[in-house]
Amino acid sequence: MTKSYWLWYPGDMELYYAMKQNFSRVERGYGWPAFWKSEGFRNRVVFRRTYMLEEDTDFMVRSRDTGFVMVNDIKYPFGVAVTAPEGEVKISIHCARIEAFPAVYIEGDTVCSDPGWMAGDYDAPEKPAGFSEYFTDPWQDPSVWEYSEKVYSPVSIEKVFVEKDDKGNVVETRAPGAGAVSGYLYTFETELTAVLEVLNTDGTPIDMLDVKTMQVCCGESREEALDMLHCYYSWHVDPQTGRCPRCALRCVFIPGRPREVYAIHQYVDIPVRAYLKTGDGLLNRIWEVAAHTFSLCSGIFFIDGIKRDKWIWSGDAYQSIHINPYLLADPSIDRRTLTALRGNDPMTTHINTITDYSMLWLMGVWDHCRLYKDLDYLRAMYPRMQSLMDFLRSQTDEAGFFTGRPGDWIYIDWADLDKEGPLGAEQMLYACCWRDMAGAAALLGREGDGAFYEDQAARLEKAIEKAYWDPEKGAYIDSFVSGRRHVSRQTNIFALRCGVARGERRKEVIENVLLNDSIPPITTPYFTFFELDELGREGRTDVLYERMTAYWGGMLARGAVTFWEEFDPLVPVSRQYDMYGDRFGKSLCHAWGASPLYLIGRYLVGLSHTMDEEGNTGFVLSPSLDHLGSLDCAFPVCGGEKTVRIRHKNGILRISTDAEGGTLVMEGARIPLHPDREYEIEI
Amino acid sequence: MTKSYWLWYPGDMELYYAMKQNFSRVERGYGWPAFWKSEGFRNRVVFRRTYMLEEDTDFMVRSRDTGFVMVNDIKYPFGVAVTAPEGEVKISIHCARIEAFPAVYIEGDTVCSDPGWMAGDYDAPEKPAGFSEYFTDPWQDPSVWEYSEKVYSPVSIEKVFVEKDDKGNVVETRAPGAGAVSGYLYTFETELTAVLEVLNTDGTPIDMLDVKTMQVCCGESREEALDMLHCYYSWHVDPQTGRCPRCALRCVFIPGRPREVYAIHQYVDIPVRAYLKTGDGLLNRIWEVAAHTFSLCSGIFFIDGIKRDKWIWSGDAYQSIHINPYLLADPSIDRRTLTALRGNDPMTTHINTITDYSMLWLMGVWDHCRLYKDLDYLRAMYPRMQSLMDFLRSQTDEAGFFTGRPGDWIYIDWADLDKEGPLGAEQMLYACCWRDMAGAAALLGREGDGAFYEDQAARLEKAIEKAYWDPEKGAYIDSFVSGRRHVSRQTNIFALRCGVARGERRKEVIENVLLNDSIPPITTPYFTFFELDELGREGRTDVLYERMTAYWGGMLARGAVTFWEEFDPLVPVSRQYDMYGDRFGKSLCHAWGASPLYLIGRYLVGLSHTMDEEGNTGFVLSPSLDHLGSLDCAFPVCGGEKTVRIRHKNGILRISTDAEGGTLVMEGARIPLHPDREYEIEI
Repeated sequence: MTKSYWLWYPGDMELYYAMKQNFSRVERGYGWPAFWKSEGFRNRVVFRRTYMLEEDTDFMVRSRDTGFVMVNDIKYPFGVAVTAPEGEVKISIHCARIEAFPAVYIEGDTVCSDPGWMAGDYDAPEKPAGFSEYFTDPWQDPSVWEYSEKVYSPVSIEKVFVEKDDKGNVVETRAPGAGAVSGYLYTFETELTAVLEVLNTDGTPIDMLDVKTMQVCCGESREEALDMLHCYYSWHVDPQTGRCPRCALRCVFIPGRPREVYAIHQYVDIPVRAYLKTGDGLLNRIWEVAAHTFSLCSGIFFIDGIKRDKWIWSGDAYQSIHINPYLLADPSIDRRTLTALRGNDPMTTHINTITDYSMLWLMGVWDHCRLYKDLDYLRAMYPRMQSLMDFLRSQTDEAGFFTGRPGDWIYIDWADLDKEGPLGAEQMLYACCWRDMAGAAALLGREGDGAFYEDQAARLEKAIEKAYWDPEKGAYIDSFVSGRRHVSRQTNIFALRCGVARGERRKEVIENVLLNDSIPPITTPYFTFFELDELGREGRTDVLYERMTAYWGGMLARGAVTFWEEFDPLVPVSRQYDMYGDRFGKSLCHAWGASPLYLIGRYLVGLSHTMDEEGNTGFVLSPSLDHLGSLDCAFPVCGGEKTVRIRHKNGILRISTDAEGGTLVMEGARIPLHPDREYEIEI
Repeated sequence: MTKSYWLWYPGDMELYYAMKQNFSRVERGYGWPAFWKSEGFRNRVVFRRTYMLEEDTDFMVRSRDTGFVMVNDIKYPFGVAVTAPEGEVKISIHCARIEAFPAVYIEGDTVCSDPGWMAGDYDAPEKPAGFSEYFTDPWQDPSVWEYSEKVYSPVSIEKVFVEKDDKGNVVETRAPGAGAVSGYLYTFETELTAVLEVLNTDGTPIDMLDVKTMQVCCGESREEALDMLHCYYSWHVDPQTGRCPRCALRCVFIPGRPREVYAIHQYVDIPVRAYLKTGDGLLNRIWEVAAHTFSLCSGIFFIDGIKRDKWIWSGDAYQSIHINPYLLADPSIDRRTLTALRGNDPMTTHINTITDYSMLWLMGVWDHCRLYKDLDYLRAMYPRMQSLMDFLRSQTDEAGFFTGRPGDWIYIDWADLDKEGPLGAEQMLYACCWRDMAGAAALLGREGDGAFYEDQAARLEKAIEKAYWDPEKGAYIDSFVSGRRHVSRQTNIFALRCGVARGERRKEVIENVLLNDSIPPITTPYFTFFELDELGREGRTDVLYERMTAYWGGMLARGAVTFWEEFDPLVPVSRQYDMYGDRFGKSLCHAWGASPLYLIGRYLVGLSHTMDEEGNTGFVLSPSLDHLGSLDCAFPVCGGEKTVRIRHKNGILRISTDAEGGTLVMEGARIPLHPDREYEIEI
């Protein structure tokens, strides 16, 4: 039997699970669904394929939908053996479902649900049907994701007393007063996304009376779990299963007598394909914690954080797409995330309601497709990239600058930007989108489109130069409308990232803005990624190393087991989990906290991924051994299918790879790395 | 407590149930969902309202959705009492649901879910929230329609023998051969949409072994129920409930021993508001059977037929909208049907895939709004009428004629039309759409729009006159492109209906086409409605009466208890249920079979509904007593809120009404009918 997949209308699976994901945020007893347009899957779908059969052949269609199979002109129900006659046979499968996306699975030797089916929704032209490696079993229900599971026991169980302090918080106390509550705190070795199972200490189920009164308080920190009033997740176990809903947790506090507690960690099993051991213990620990953080935030989709928001944000995903090749090198999570973010055509709202997030989506698609040489995906997304550009272009002023519409959220960063008139930082991204479109058109052989996109990019860059470049300050300003000539790091970092500042301009901007202490510093990890990326690209690994180890090392010093949404070393320990005016508002496991994976891999190990004009992938290696000391690491390369291993010890650098297209660049020399040979270089 | 409704995003309830309806067709074991784009409801909705409260006031939100209530800046879960403070209070309710449309119910003295809430989908501007008289109870689930039920026992139970005939059909036999099967046939007094309950004759449940082997064969006719192989619905009872799924049935055949069988008729209880008794027995019977047929096909929506297709078709619904005022006068089923048909913006496909059905939708909205003075609905639909016109206009040729797109279905009628180039009949409808838009714009006070629409209508009518009017034939031709100058009744009937043929032209068309036997006759009940409507309007009640009694009387003579999809008196009884090459393919209870309700009410009773330019509704009565003999009838008037009663006996006509705006027109005289007075006129 040929390999079959569950088939669906392309994008439907992603849109369905994206809704499940974006509706899964829970906060102290209420659900908090994401506040943007939620795109539905299709409810009525047809799958079609024509076979030329050499003999009569049997097949069977499985589906939970309402519908039928049609073989030439004859209709059959689902779930029965059907014989397709010899010769040319037209098969169509008609499906309808309201509560989840329609899906079919076809079992057969010749006629089966392998790639090659087209899907239609009675509206757009038919497209290749969607499928996933995660849904290949006839007994699966594609609307139920089957997580991998690993059961954890607590690494410590402590009896604790808590009581209300004078601010109304519930805190641990060594000298319990009259209103104190005693209970047990269960701590796991690290943070998990887990279903908790609670039993009596003799292994029997919790009885009904206990179920009603027993409160199970979860926390990303000890403090959060103990604060029965303010912890985000506080459950009663389900009396049937003895379990609590899946949530982020590291510590669990259960008032009353001791219990037996297990955390059933549920995750999407995406193999880790990189490892790193250096002579620098802090760097190693940063790598490990970042890797754990990134894996936790990489499931069906890239999400921002596992406790909060649990939403798919385009800006966060854009960074995850760049981190991914240095740990997982999994292109399918990129695709699921990008497809979910973009939704259906027509485009009528900005992604996550944020103008810059629409643009980062497009840049993310392009970067993804080059990283993995994913031409199929580029081809599938190209019409949606075009309609996104049409959408952006409908929101420009006479000069061609992107303005957005009244009410649109222009984010860029949590920072003090001068947002009067069209914002400089937005123009940088907008110019990059035109350039990326030109690249995409070229790669897909659509030269006609390409010329238009090149022209748009060139015009816009020229207009930016004229309107936003301030020769006196030697920097790009946020706004030319206000007259304030405000210079921010954000606008200039995007000018660098987006290739608007090139050559000499680039040097000026680095010098006058990024290395200029009088320009207010970046305070968010989100933009720290962009800033350190530019400093790294500029060869300033010294600054990069220093700031990275200070910032992420600072979190480790505060006991972090996963990296946080935000960290300010000046905030006292007692308020370190506070954010958005909420005592435990801060997410302690946040995808963008994992950016050291990228920064270390890209600039300290010095591995960059390349694609030449013919679409051949390769890599360049340019290790910055000063900051690493001894080194033993391996990274996926060439779209993740190959590996490069790098070791450095006692002045000898050893490199081996099974990939074509690798180059070592050291001290000005370029050494081609041929596969299956070990290179030994004395340093 | 103020009256609360369940609230949803406007249109979501209709789109959800429309999918349930359009996916409910079952045929011999497989589901056959409608083959057009199925529009989903929204999954993420917000409801908002600002109150000015004189004192603190409590309320509670009920919902099955994920979400929360926000009072000013504070969030609360659903299902708990919330206090809104005195003064200006902004309340928003955030909801998300995947498998059904989000909906909320608010209990409270002041803050409650009465009309006045706005609903948003994070895309379009916020609109008044949707609600329905059918969902006013806090314990209801708006995604489950609660049908009214009436239990029927069979009126006859017969032991029968069936066997296969030489064509492979299973038919009744008086002399059972070796392969014969015996069983019992249960016949109900009329056709029903029912859940069957089957018990043993002693009232005990069917046992498990029996459940597996016992086949329950349903039919709209005795013949269909007995043909175990070809009947549309053949069930096994659910072992838990002893019941079969809801389906159309009149007869039930169960092979084997006798059983106790009940039919639980499930229906939407829309009160019948008209009655009619005349001196003509045949007319009375036609009225009764048409009334039953129409009620069966009028549920959540107007559907075509209760056995098949069970789909919401725009052309069929258009006729039902015109029949409705003469029996039910229920505007809410019109609204549900029209909302469901139109779907969401943007409009990208024709309604039911048929170009003329898109146009009939718009004409239906306009006719509905005038019949019931339904300005709120007109206001709500106006943007969708506009986008539909944009959609049509994008499919016109240089001359402004509507052509549709390649692949669009141009239906008009099952008839031999000359479809080369733009079709004449389509242009008539298209012109009518422009006129109706002008009327809608005027009624809504949008004069700017109105002038444009008037102009478009006038231009198109002029172009039609030039291209399609054939002076030699004195008729409109189907196509001016082919050179064949083919004259069909359909094109000319639509020219009349759409007001393109006016004044003298109208007389010419009636004479040269409708009353011309050399023009091929209309063969479908669908177009018979349109043709008889024009003959009636022309005062040819003689032809109307004759053709109506012949056609519908012919079905009664064949034993019809509901009116059929189609009837040809020349087809032998043995093949009278045959259609689409299928022995029981014909629907025996079809909405458009009920058009005598309209024809009798409108032309024999002579009741027409009016609306003047100020939007006041009224009626004109002009009875054609020759065809009725004695008469006792009552009809809803003025949008269904009032009634007119008409009696005629022994040369005395008695009329009374509680409505303003009535006029009796008889023999050239116009007599205003004042409410609450009885008029006695000697004939």
